[in-house]
Amino acid sequence: MKISRTPNPPYYAIIFTSIKKEPAEGYENMANYLDKLLPKQKGFLGYETARENIGITVSYWETLEDLKAWKENEIHIKANEIGKRIWYEDCTVRIAKVEKEYSL
Amino acid sequence: MKISRTPNPPYYAIIFTSIKKEPAEGYENMANYLDKLLPKQKGFLGYETARENIGITVSYWETLEDLKAWKENEIHIKANEIGKRIWYEDCTVRIAKVEKEYSL
Repeated sequence: MKISRTPNPPYYAIIFTSIKKEPAEGYENMANYLDKLLPKQKGFLGYETARENIGITVSYWETLEDLKAWKENEIHIKANEIGKRIWYEDCTVRIAKVEKEYSL
Repeated sequence: MKISRTPNPPYYAIIFTSIKKEPAEGYENMANYLDKLLPKQKGFLGYETARENIGITVSYWETLEDLKAWKENEIHIKANEIGKRIWYEDCTVRIAKVEKEYSL
């Protein structure tokens, strides 16, 4: 995993944080499937993900419409439903507009 | 680490992603120090952090002014300087306005 090379802002981000139950049967398969699906979406700019005690996934989108289309993707909705029901002890979705980007 | 209980949007976020060199001498000490410093800052709403191949830290702030004050905090600046010089192979800072928040 590398840091996403996103364009000059503004663009949009979905910040998804979750705490997973253990075991979370079927989670890895779905995660791998979504990883492959994501880059094919219109307006997808990149994503970053890491999990320790908490999992954080940030995906970046050209426009709010592109972001919404991903939110409404059938398989993505299905994954969220299963996640809510089975995999996640807790989770939060935040929709944000990235206004600045820089390196240190 | 728990998911941050942030208020109703809008509020602001710093999304910091980094790839660490190994070893990164002094990094843990500084990270622990900043962890303690963060909650004392004005307008601080919470933060979430995880590291696998990539490290993602998202901190949440009441206003853009509060976020900027943290960016300009002396110790934070010092940490960034050392990070750039010694700890990080690559890193990106993104400033974002959180516009929506919900659970699944």
